[in-house]
Amino acid sequence: MKLWLNQLTREVPADLRTPAEIARFELAGALPGKKVTLDEQPALGDSWTIAPADGGFRISGGNTGLLYAAYRLITGLLCGEDFSVRVSSAPKYSLRMVDCWDNPDGSIERGYSGRSLFFDGGRLSYDPSRIRELGRLLASVGLNVLCINNVNVRFPAQLLLEDSLPELASLADLFRPFGIRLMVSVDFSQPMRRDLATSDPLDPAVREWWKRTCARVWAAVPDLAGFLVKADSEGQPGPYAYGRTHADGANMLAEAMAPFGGKVVWRCFVYNCKQDWRDTKTDRPMAAWEHYAPLDGAFAGNVILQVKHGPFDFQVREPLSPLLLGMKKTALAMELQLAQEYTGHQIDLYTMIPMWKELYEELPPDNVTALAAVSNLGNDAVCTGHPLAAVNLFAYGMLAWDPGIGARETVTRWARLTWHFAPEQERSLVSLLLSSRAVYEKYTATLGLCWMVNPHDHYGPNPSGYEYDLWGTYHRANRDAVGIDRTAAGTGYLLQYPEELREKYGNPGTCPDLYLLFFHRLPYTFVMQDGRTLIQRIYDDHFEGAEEAERMSETLSALPFPEPEASIIRERMERQLRNAREWRDVVNTFFHRLCGIPDARGRRIYD
Amino acid sequence: MKLWLNQLTREVPADLRTPAEIARFELAGALPGKKVTLDEQPALGDSWTIAPADGGFRISGGNTGLLYAAYRLITGLLCGEDFSVRVSSAPKYSLRMVDCWDNPDGSIERGYSGRSLFFDGGRLSYDPSRIRELGRLLASVGLNVLCINNVNVRFPAQLLLEDSLPELASLADLFRPFGIRLMVSVDFSQPMRRDLATSDPLDPAVREWWKRTCARVWAAVPDLAGFLVKADSEGQPGPYAYGRTHADGANMLAEAMAPFGGKVVWRCFVYNCKQDWRDTKTDRPMAAWEHYAPLDGAFAGNVILQVKHGPFDFQVREPLSPLLLGMKKTALAMELQLAQEYTGHQIDLYTMIPMWKELYEELPPDNVTALAAVSNLGNDAVCTGHPLAAVNLFAYGMLAWDPGIGARETVTRWARLTWHFAPEQERSLVSLLLSSRAVYEKYTATLGLCWMVNPHDHYGPNPSGYEYDLWGTYHRANRDAVGIDRTAAGTGYLLQYPEELREKYGNPGTCPDLYLLFFHRLPYTFVMQDGRTLIQRIYDDHFEGAEEAERMSETLSALPFPEPEASIIRERMERQLRNAREWRDVVNTFFHRLCGIPDARGRRIYD
Repeated sequence: MKLWLNQLTREVPADLRTPAEIARFELAGALPGKKVTLDEQPALGDSWTIAPADGGFRISGGNTGLLYAAYRLITGLLCGEDFSVRVSSAPKYSLRMVDCWDNPDGSIERGYSGRSLFFDGGRLSYDPSRIRELGRLLASVGLNVLCINNVNVRFPAQLLLEDSLPELASLADLFRPFGIRLMVSVDFSQPMRRDLATSDPLDPAVREWWKRTCARVWAAVPDLAGFLVKADSEGQPGPYAYGRTHADGANMLAEAMAPFGGKVVWRCFVYNCKQDWRDTKTDRPMAAWEHYAPLDGAFAGNVILQVKHGPFDFQVREPLSPLLLGMKKTALAMELQLAQEYTGHQIDLYTMIPMWKELYEELPPDNVTALAAVSNLGNDAVCTGHPLAAVNLFAYGMLAWDPGIGARETVTRWARLTWHFAPEQERSLVSLLLSSRAVYEKYTATLGLCWMVNPHDHYGPNPSGYEYDLWGTYHRANRDAVGIDRTAAGTGYLLQYPEELREKYGNPGTCPDLYLLFFHRLPYTFVMQDGRTLIQRIYDDHFEGAEEAERMSETLSALPFPEPEASIIRERMERQLRNAREWRDVVNTFFHRLCGIPDARGRRIYD
Repeated sequence: MKLWLNQLTREVPADLRTPAEIARFELAGALPGKKVTLDEQPALGDSWTIAPADGGFRISGGNTGLLYAAYRLITGLLCGEDFSVRVSSAPKYSLRMVDCWDNPDGSIERGYSGRSLFFDGGRLSYDPSRIRELGRLLASVGLNVLCINNVNVRFPAQLLLEDSLPELASLADLFRPFGIRLMVSVDFSQPMRRDLATSDPLDPAVREWWKRTCARVWAAVPDLAGFLVKADSEGQPGPYAYGRTHADGANMLAEAMAPFGGKVVWRCFVYNCKQDWRDTKTDRPMAAWEHYAPLDGAFAGNVILQVKHGPFDFQVREPLSPLLLGMKKTALAMELQLAQEYTGHQIDLYTMIPMWKELYEELPPDNVTALAAVSNLGNDAVCTGHPLAAVNLFAYGMLAWDPGIGARETVTRWARLTWHFAPEQERSLVSLLLSSRAVYEKYTATLGLCWMVNPHDHYGPNPSGYEYDLWGTYHRANRDAVGIDRTAAGTGYLLQYPEELREKYGNPGTCPDLYLLFFHRLPYTFVMQDGRTLIQRIYDDHFEGAEEAERMSETLSALPFPEPEASIIRERMERQLRNAREWRDVVNTFFHRLCGIPDARGRRIYD
């Protein structure tokens, strides 16, 4: 699992204990002829300066700063970066988190890269040398917190805080030299497993239980980053069972871990997952705001609310979650998803950084204090399933360090480190990757029409798959119109946004095309800003998306990937082509059957 | 699992060895004051005569005939039947088969009554006293062949013909006193498991292999009824892999077992299960005819083709399979399904005998030489899941003995034996059961619109669930029309029928309503024979179906079922009501969104 570090051929020795030691080792290995001096200044933490000195370099930084600088220097030189002048850098976010949805049995929820790197057979189980490889990989892009278990905490995951503490401590020891701190997803009702009859966060015995538990846990893993909590969400237990608020719940945990410097990362993914499809009043995207906005300012200082980037659930196209704009008095983490749950299962190409950059067009970087991303890693030969999906992990690290980075620059850096192509080929690959999300969007979710996927699995088209189901994800397409009116005249969701965005999205005449059916219900004959009808745009995008996938396939097949990656890439691209054709035909037929309007260009739509 | 035999309180002793011995035991137990003389005449086989004699009865019959007569006399007297004059009876079909889809791991494919009564942990595993109860139950309604394992033969089911022969023989010994012979589903490619590189039915080594195997198998179980084979169907291996016909395959097995009197029961469930939904030329109901009709007359004398009653797959409403009408030179078994795969999962009430009687309106009884039915049994406390689903097993036994039986008479007999209600309550229950299929049909499959079910699971509505899938089951509903034209002008399926039926079904003006959308594609505005439009009939049936389910619920709740059955019936009826409402609303909304035509009676259809 070297991925973009494939030029670092020496394994990191097991006896290195600190980030500075690893920095020294990596520099000696990668730049054997260069003199590099390390000047450790603990107060600098993650940040660093690289300056030319004596024909070599002088690096100053905190303990982890030295490590990040070492990787930056090594990879920068490989990429042809100029270090002839002094360069300094500090991360935008101090918590740069990767959330693994790994289960104790070794399966990974929404995992498309094989099985868990941490668990098997109900307990922690790993190969220490692979853990060191993973630590190196994450550190090389500045990631520093790893939550190892699924937010859906099912037995025996609770044992991580009980019998498995020694094993958890050993794993933390392995990651610590790479500057990586562990985090654990916890079960809010865990006090009830053995000890108490309640998990009411205001019950003194419960509070005491968590204090005792945190003391035990931090005694075993003194630098544990904290707990990740999914409460009152999709069946997970939470404070609502006791009539308490999520502030009550989060603050109770926060108090218990405050003496040890831990953070409560509390997910805001709360909605009615048993909505009756007949209920047109309830609008799922409104749920998180309704649950959390009234609590703004009520959370303890060591609570971070982790908010999915959009109001639904990692769809291809969602507006920014209004919580990320509106909760000014609460520490927030934005949650991204590297695992391609709705974005192609690491079969279809989907490079995410263009999408993340769009989010930051509306998100002031200071609105959030941390980033988190659901991992796309597993124990596959290619540990991201698709060899080209590794770009998302790489770019995520870059983004969490500096959300101002450029998409093309980042993808180019990854491509150069990974593939060592000739310039023309590299440009070709980079352009293809940068366009891949737009292509996928065209054939799966044009105009903000999300959720037309196969239920549960979330790969492949199924226009009515969620339409009569419980999950609150409807398009309500009929023979005349499609979409949900989320303006003030409709469900009112748009009212959760600041005035500027209400105006941007509120009028179908000015709303950007790609958000049109997210915010509006419109007739198929609606004339868009470019003069096309809505239905013609739907047809066009689906035909174009499938055609563009064909061109991506041609481009890819001309690139000199080595084996075994070349075969994997080819095989997945063939599956993507089948998927793109299926989406094109199913969605076009679905709408054609509804509206009866032929394609203006006479292309084949099946009856 | 006494079910309708709940008045037979004594367990059948383990030391009884023949049907005549069991007959004697049962008569002594059930009619303690009566003198009953048994006159065994082996040549009479299954048939029997009951005559009054000396204030008691004289029964003559073959060995099994005596047993069937004993049960008939016992149950007949309980039902108030008149035996004051001589009564004789002989079964219409000599093979009255029950097919279990039990897997070696104890699961049951399409089983809704718990786990297997025969298998667990990869091998035969059973409670001998339960097997005797089952034998008694089946014999009491004249059923005489039991295929114990799933037609989808997956490892380790093959061991039944290998290491597990002694256990198979022991199970056969348990059933033998009840006149029940075992059958085994076999894997057509089994010669390749250990011994050969081919299973080509014309290869001499393969033929030799099956001869050796049959010799071993019949040495262990001398009265084995034969093998059941699902070949070249839904992934199962078969002769097509070698360019051979199904006659080649079946005859090869037939030859191997001919010395032992075994039968090859060869299923005709062959179709393209990977049809592309875009392909409008292929019409799945045509497949069985295309595969088998050309082979009429080519099968050995001990081959029976087992044909599902309809051309699809046990839907609520299908016309009779044309194979059952057209293959005059081949022995045929009609296959029914007691397991309620598409008919309510033993949650919704669905009494099948009205449907079977409809089949016989078109099927000359002599066209088939045997009946088979997929079992609805399992190891649940109520061994048919729903206590009222037992009526289907009971009625199936009656039908296989005499397809001329009356539906009301049969259900009344079952109700009286099982529940011992007062006459008014009994009539109420019987009428409810007799109407249950029509009610279920109204809310799930009106006008022959089948397959609108949730894929794979087959419970609950999903109008487009199979519409863009591989299985060849489409309605192709659009904003104007719905259904497949299967007349000569369409796919031509109707041409597989005799002239009389072509005329009956061929014209939408004369085609019976309930088959209308099975054979025709029609606009929503089509005016039916009763003057309603097609869409109004769809709405009406769905509203009425749900209302009638409500009335069934009221009727049921007024009946004095004992516990624990009363609670089970009540709980399942509540689920049926939810299911009926869901079907009503989902299907009505689906069509309303398509056609935009309001309900003429202004009832609520959701948008």
